[in-house]
Amino acid sequence: MPELDALRDSLREFAAERDWEQFHSPKNLAMALSVEAAELMEHFQWRSEEQSRHPTAEELAGIREELADVLLYLVRLADQLGVDLLESAQAKILVNASKYPVDKSRGNSRKYTEI
Amino acid sequence: MPELDALRDSLREFAAERDWEQFHSPKNLAMALSVEAAELMEHFQWRSEEQSRHPTAEELAGIREELADVLLYLVRLADQLGVDLLESAQAKILVNASKYPVDKSRGNSRKYTEI
Amino acid sequence: MPELDALRDSLREFAAERDWEQFHSPKNLAMALSVEAAELMEHFQWRSEEQSRHPTAEELAGIREELADVLLYLVRLADQLGVDLLESAQAKILVNASKYPVDKSRGNSRKYTEI
Amino acid sequence: MPELDALRDSLREFAAERDWEQFHSPKNLAMALSVEAAELMEHFQWRSEEQSRHPTAEELAGIREELADVLLYLVRLADQLGVDLLESAQAKILVNASKYPVDKSRGNSRKYTEI
Repeated sequence: MPELDALRDSLREFAAERDWEQFHSPKNLAMALSVEAAELMEHFQWRSEEQSRHPTAEELAGIREELADVLLYLVRLADQLGVDLLESAQAKILVNASKYPVDKSRGNSRKYTEI
Repeated sequence: MPELDALRDSLREFAAERDWEQFHSPKNLAMALSVEAAELMEHFQWRSEEQSRHPTAEELAGIREELADVLLYLVRLADQLGVDLLESAQAKILVNASKYPVDKSRGNSRKYTEI
Repeated sequence: MPELDALRDSLREFAAERDWEQFHSPKNLAMALSVEAAELMEHFQWRSEEQSRHPTAEELAGIREELADVLLYLVRLADQLGVDLLESAQAKILVNASKYPVDKSRGNSRKYTEI
Repeated sequence: MPELDALRDSLREFAAERDWEQFHSPKNLAMALSVEAAELMEHFQWRSEEQSRHPTAEELAGIREELADVLLYLVRLADQLGVDLLESAQAKILVNASKYPVDKSRGNSRKYTEI
C-alpha cells in the first residue's frame, strides 16, 4: 500500500477512535499546520544558514519531531479535503519545471522562489 | 520505489540542474515552508469552520497547489537534514497514541492538541 | 515622546548593551516575528471563534505576553529598516478605506480580507 | 491622545462602519496576523542576512505595507481581548532584561532568543 495512503488511514483511525473529527475542520488543521511549521522554523532562528546545515544530534531529534508533525497535519488536511497529496506534488513539480527553465534559472537569484 | 523517496530524488535533480543547492539551507527551506503553510491557511481565513469544509472547485484548485508546495519544501528540507520523513511520521503517531490514550482523550477539548 | 519611538529606543539600547545588533538582521527579525505570531495563534487553536472571545485569566496572561513579543519584534524590525511604523499604519488605513468602501463592503464576505 | 489608542479607535470605527466585528474574533484576527507576518517574511526569503539589510526602494515600499498590516491586526486583536498593548510591551522588556542580564548575554549565541 502506498506509504502516504497508509499514513492517511492511520490518522483517520486515530481521529475516529478519539472522536476528534469534529475538531479537524480544514480551517483548524491549516492553523495547526502553520503552527508546527513555525516550531520547525524556530530551530533555525538566530542561526546562520551554515549553522542550520549542521544541527547537533539533540537539535536534530527535535527537528525530526517537528518535520513529522508537519507531515501528519498535511496528510490529515489533504484527506479532509479529498486531495491526493502525492499526485498534487508531482503535478506541481512539472509546473515548476516549465516555470523555471534550467537555462534561464541557473543560479539565478531572481528565480529561485520555488523549489 | 517508495513515493516520498521518488519525490526527494526529483527535487534533488531539480535543484542540481539549476544550481540551487546553495540557496537550500535548512534555514531558508524552513522559512519557505512556513510561508507556504501561511498561504495555505489564507484560503480558510475569514471562513467559518463549516465553510472551510466546503471550498468551491476554484478554491480547491488553489488549495491543492499550496498543499503540494508544503509537501515539496518538507521533503526537500528533510532531505537536506538527512531525516527519513516517513519513519519520523510513523514514530510520531506512536508517540501521540501513548500521549493521548483513547479512553482519556475521547472528544476531550483539553487533549486534542495533536492529530 | 511618542510611545512607539520610546519602545524603539528601549530596544536599541537593549540590543546595543548585549551586542545583539549582529543577530538582528531584517531576515532574522522577520523570522522571529513570524514565530511569535504563530505562538500567539496557538492560543486560539482548536478553540471555536466564540471560545476565542472568552479566554480564561490564565490564558489571557499568556496571550498578553505573545502580543507583546510580536510588537517588540515589529518595532525592532521597522527600526532596522528605517520605517516609520505609525506613519505606515495610518497610510494603510486610508488605502483600506478606499479599497473597501462602506456601502459595498457592509457585512460582505467577499471583501473582509483587510481590517 | 496616545498613538496606539488612536489607531485602535480608527480600526474600531472601520470595522463598525462595515459591520465586520462579526468576523473579527480573536481566532480569525490571530490567523490574519500570522498570514501578514509570513507575507512580511517572504520579502526576505532567499536573501542573505546581509542582503536583507539593504532592500531596494521598491522592495521597501512593499515591506512597509506588510509592517503596517501586522501592526493593524495586532492593535485590533489586542483591542478585541481588552489588552493594553503598550503596557504589555513595556512589561515584557523588563522581563527580558532580567532574563538576559547584560554581563551573561553579551554577544552570546545561546541567549539571544529574545529581543
